[in-house]
Amino acid sequence: MASPEMKSIRQQLPRWLETSLPCATRGNVASYIPELSKAPHNALGITLLSATGESASAGDCGLRFTMQSISKVFTLILALMDNGEDEVFSKVGMEPTGDNFNSMLKLELVRPGIPFNPMINAGAITVSSLIRGSSPEEKSERILHFFKDLAGNDRLDYDMGVYRSESDTGNLNRSISFFLKENGVLSGDVEEVLDVYFRHCSIVVDCADLARMALVLASNGTDPLTGKQLIPRRYVQIAKTFMTTCGMYNASGEFAIQVGLPAKSGVSGGILTLVPERYGIGVVGPALNDKGNSYAGVHLLQTISRELDWSMF
Amino acid sequence: MASPEMKSIRQQLPRWLETSLPCATRGNVASYIPELSKAPHNALGITLLSATGESASAGDCGLRFTMQSISKVFTLILALMDNGEDEVFSKVGMEPTGDNFNSMLKLELVRPGIPFNPMINAGAITVSSLIRGSSPEEKSERILHFFKDLAGNDRLDYDMGVYRSESDTGNLNRSISFFLKENGVLSGDVEEVLDVYFRHCSIVVDCADLARMALVLASNGTDPLTGKQLIPRRYVQIAKTFMTTCGMYNASGEFAIQVGLPAKSGVSGGILTLVPERYGIGVVGPALNDKGNSYAGVHLLQTISRELDWSMF
Amino acid sequence: MASPEMKSIRQQLPRWLETSLPCATRGNVASYIPELSKAPHNALGITLLSATGESASAGDCGLRFTMQSISKVFTLILALMDNGEDEVFSKVGMEPTGDNFNSMLKLELVRPGIPFNPMINAGAITVSSLIRGSSPEEKSERILHFFKDLAGNDRLDYDMGVYRSESDTGNLNRSISFFLKENGVLSGDVEEVLDVYFRHCSIVVDCADLARMALVLASNGTDPLTGKQLIPRRYVQIAKTFMTTCGMYNASGEFAIQVGLPAKSGVSGGILTLVPERYGIGVVGPALNDKGNSYAGVHLLQTISRELDWSMF
Amino acid sequence: MASPEMKSIRQQLPRWLETSLPCATRGNVASYIPELSKAPHNALGITLLSATGESASAGDCGLRFTMQSISKVFTLILALMDNGEDEVFSKVGMEPTGDNFNSMLKLELVRPGIPFNPMINAGAITVSSLIRGSSPEEKSERILHFFKDLAGNDRLDYDMGVYRSESDTGNLNRSISFFLKENGVLSGDVEEVLDVYFRHCSIVVDCADLARMALVLASNGTDPLTGKQLIPRRYVQIAKTFMTTCGMYNASGEFAIQVGLPAKSGVSGGILTLVPERYGIGVVGPALNDKGNSYAGVHLLQTISRELDWSMF
Repeated sequence: MASPEMKSIRQQLPRWLETSLPCATRGNVASYIPELSKAPHNALGITLLSATGESASAGDCGLRFTMQSISKVFTLILALMDNGEDEVFSKVGMEPTGDNFNSMLKLELVRPGIPFNPMINAGAITVSSLIRGSSPEEKSERILHFFKDLAGNDRLDYDMGVYRSESDTGNLNRSISFFLKENGVLSGDVEEVLDVYFRHCSIVVDCADLARMALVLASNGTDPLTGKQLIPRRYVQIAKTFMTTCGMYNASGEFAIQVGLPAKSGVSGGILTLVPERYGIGVVGPALNDKGNSYAGVHLLQTISRELDWSMF
Repeated sequence: MASPEMKSIRQQLPRWLETSLPCATRGNVASYIPELSKAPHNALGITLLSATGESASAGDCGLRFTMQSISKVFTLILALMDNGEDEVFSKVGMEPTGDNFNSMLKLELVRPGIPFNPMINAGAITVSSLIRGSSPEEKSERILHFFKDLAGNDRLDYDMGVYRSESDTGNLNRSISFFLKENGVLSGDVEEVLDVYFRHCSIVVDCADLARMALVLASNGTDPLTGKQLIPRRYVQIAKTFMTTCGMYNASGEFAIQVGLPAKSGVSGGILTLVPERYGIGVVGPALNDKGNSYAGVHLLQTISRELDWSMF
Repeated sequence: MASPEMKSIRQQLPRWLETSLPCATRGNVASYIPELSKAPHNALGITLLSATGESASAGDCGLRFTMQSISKVFTLILALMDNGEDEVFSKVGMEPTGDNFNSMLKLELVRPGIPFNPMINAGAITVSSLIRGSSPEEKSERILHFFKDLAGNDRLDYDMGVYRSESDTGNLNRSISFFLKENGVLSGDVEEVLDVYFRHCSIVVDCADLARMALVLASNGTDPLTGKQLIPRRYVQIAKTFMTTCGMYNASGEFAIQVGLPAKSGVSGGILTLVPERYGIGVVGPALNDKGNSYAGVHLLQTISRELDWSMF
Repeated sequence: MASPEMKSIRQQLPRWLETSLPCATRGNVASYIPELSKAPHNALGITLLSATGESASAGDCGLRFTMQSISKVFTLILALMDNGEDEVFSKVGMEPTGDNFNSMLKLELVRPGIPFNPMINAGAITVSSLIRGSSPEEKSERILHFFKDLAGNDRLDYDMGVYRSESDTGNLNRSISFFLKENGVLSGDVEEVLDVYFRHCSIVVDCADLARMALVLASNGTDPLTGKQLIPRRYVQIAKTFMTTCGMYNASGEFAIQVGLPAKSGVSGGILTLVPERYGIGVVGPALNDKGNSYAGVHLLQTISRELDWSMF
């Protein structure tokens, strides 16, 4: 039997979603990767999953999309599990940048030239280079396996079209990577590191997958539906902190003010967010605002957070 | 009779403080305002105040110092109370910058040229200009009065030596202000706005004052010791969010990872922080690290937060 | 009797000017100083003056306009005559910036924070502060007197409307000045320095005045029409070098490629240029291109330089 | 029989060189390419070659070194000969930057994101991509052949050790190249373009070779010793203009003030400069100042230019 809050959510969710839908018309589907531009412009979907296993969904929650930057949260966690805090934070900082996610300014302007945080491209590429594995294939395999565990979904896989599209057009990421190599941040072969990076960005999910992965974070690393401890609590804490300060690109500050939940967005229009101890949430809405976040998705989360008084602050 | 946690805190606080003291030798007392350089280099003090009125103190908690940037949290709140969210956020943004607190780069580089957030100098000067009042004197009077209410301390007053020292040497703040005026952000006379700004930076407090002010934030705007609602809850939420994302200058991200509490520091070495619903905390340690935060103060808060598992994340 | 080249110039000048006139429609009259926006959008005038005293004019050569940035060449020379090279170049550099003339980026980003060159606003304000005189009035008087000598025109005077307009709206210059003061570059009272700066920017000239001033530079510091040595040759050399590398704002490189003559432009649409040893030239065309140079004026000079093979390079 | 000036130069050159030698101790031999660091720290050599074929040399004029950035002048000329002005300047601008030669800031900050000029790395790499040829080998072959003609030296060849060293460590140039590709400036394969670029940087010359190449520029494109027209005059003009405004990295402005001759330096310590219509000059001094120019070489040229009053300005 559903909790009273879940009942209320189930009841109101379709209406809230309806209210947010028109926002999509003001946004644009990402086009820098040709494959991404095929996403349905006006889609909007959401799935919430509670620690007791109850869920609520609305809209296009079955839409499948690539994780893109959302994957950065979990590769960071895997890199922390592989290397520990000290090693990881010797290569990547902890500060929001105020710049675009693909900016190179601070790599040139601010010594010692390490990426400011693991949520921007420079930082996430660095993190990808820290994943343990004797080959790009093995690293990618370990990442995919970890993601499958987190999502409780053995069928997670890559969208090879998106992967190739990203790899083919990823010249800015190549530029960033060679700059990182110059600064001594990245070791190993650039194309191999980027292969790992492009692959985990291309893992396909739906809202339910995101909600389940988020629920593990909301539950301090344990999957409440299986009881398995998948992530040490400290690394969940680190991840949730980065999601709060840097998770929504250079609109993270506004999201913290207006929604107040740890979250991570991707240019495919996905958002993974959570209510600590209570809910994992997956959202998708491919039309993006000028900061690269789902226009309607952010609006929807803002509505829900206000209605249910969910801000952490 | 003190709560078990408070008892434990009282018992361990002197030892934790002892451990953090040596950090002070690695920092430097702010010297850009001549008056500030007179502060005792090795001082370190802390006061915690619980919502039930119990307190714990250690070290140089009686040291008196000027609020400096800590005042920005409360002038923001007053500006919100005076003007509402829409008006305030039409003049100042919500994003961390990744730059120094007195940087002007983004004012020139990022349209529309409004300050990124109210915690950096450009933003706080803008906020000062939004305080209601027919003259700089009246605005300053209203601020001081508000601060007295928050600290429950009618004797709060300016350090006129620091005020004059700031005003005399505040050329970078003048430069920022005229740039803001050029960008159409600041209206009114620059020197009058700066007078208000320099004054509230010069209000003298001790750790107990900060702890009491922080306790009001921890209690969602109500002073739990008097029961008086001093701030609307939404504005407390906004303030705590900014303290989390931008409160510790461009080390806010690291502080969130390592301490995980909303906080605001000042170049006099003060830090105001809080445990939601539970404690208001004031810290002082004049020797600063290279980001402008109290070296020993940050170390002490890190120790306490870890020992007591206080991170919000 | 006119020289063959002068005869040819007189003959062809009206046609060349005609060809350049349409460019004006693509430009915009400066509007950031309200007074400047009153200038006639489609005007274009030119005067050439040879070392033997022959002249050629066409178009609106009688139009009167304020010198604006053109004055920077001659205040630099006066500051050099007052202080010597070493003193001047301890306060201002010798490098083109690639940035807008009013940019503050490099003041913040590049140590030791002195202006890159004396042709950008930060540099010219610094130069104004170096003019000898016991008061702003005396400094301004000395500058005006020097300019009268150079133009051989005792009636040179300020446009007080433009002066007041610049002073009233000069917040960006104030911002720059306070930043320079912070960096230890500017001594003395900012408003007093700016008063000197705004005044010399407001000196009114016509094309004949500019041509005569330019002829002194073309003649290595001696006015060939009177035989008087007005500027030491080395300082003329310095001025001509800066005019070549930085005289046309951040289009100086293109002007050097396309015209190849030392030149200095102002936002009133004036351009002062010269053919070494041979001609002083004054041009005016108030409609500016996006770099702040007279659209038609640059086009006209390009035509003449190519037709007569005048590039220094 | 030598001209009187050449006689005088021959007589005084050893003394001037002697005076400049101590400067070398203040500089550092470039170490970013391991192979370059092997150059003799205290070497200083010079060769002047007149349009009548007379020459004067002093010091280590026989030292052989790679052209590095000096080659950029001549690949620009070849690209102009291959493509014309319009095509070349649609891909690369004409403005000095004020930034380091390997800076990427303006590629990100200034639309449309083309390199500011062909003398910085981004611009020179772009120029290399414009050289005609069906393969990197053919392009490189055409460049080498052109350089041989200019130097009148059929034995010019690559230093393959330096070439490989540059290629192995050229991550910053790779980063720049991929950014250029992202911005649509560079077409073709990045590694192929860089191969052409690294190769022409690795061509070995001595002071006499540089002097002869410079003499062709001084003679408006004709080799005065053979009478052969090797470069159209307009392209020489363009090259000399860039050498004046951007040839000495971000010390070009100072060099123009202090020496006043078109010049191009390389990190191997070479400088190619010229006196229009009269002399081609090659200098080498491997110890560099903090802007990347030969410390002693610049000093020597400053002495000669002042003694012989050679500034163009």
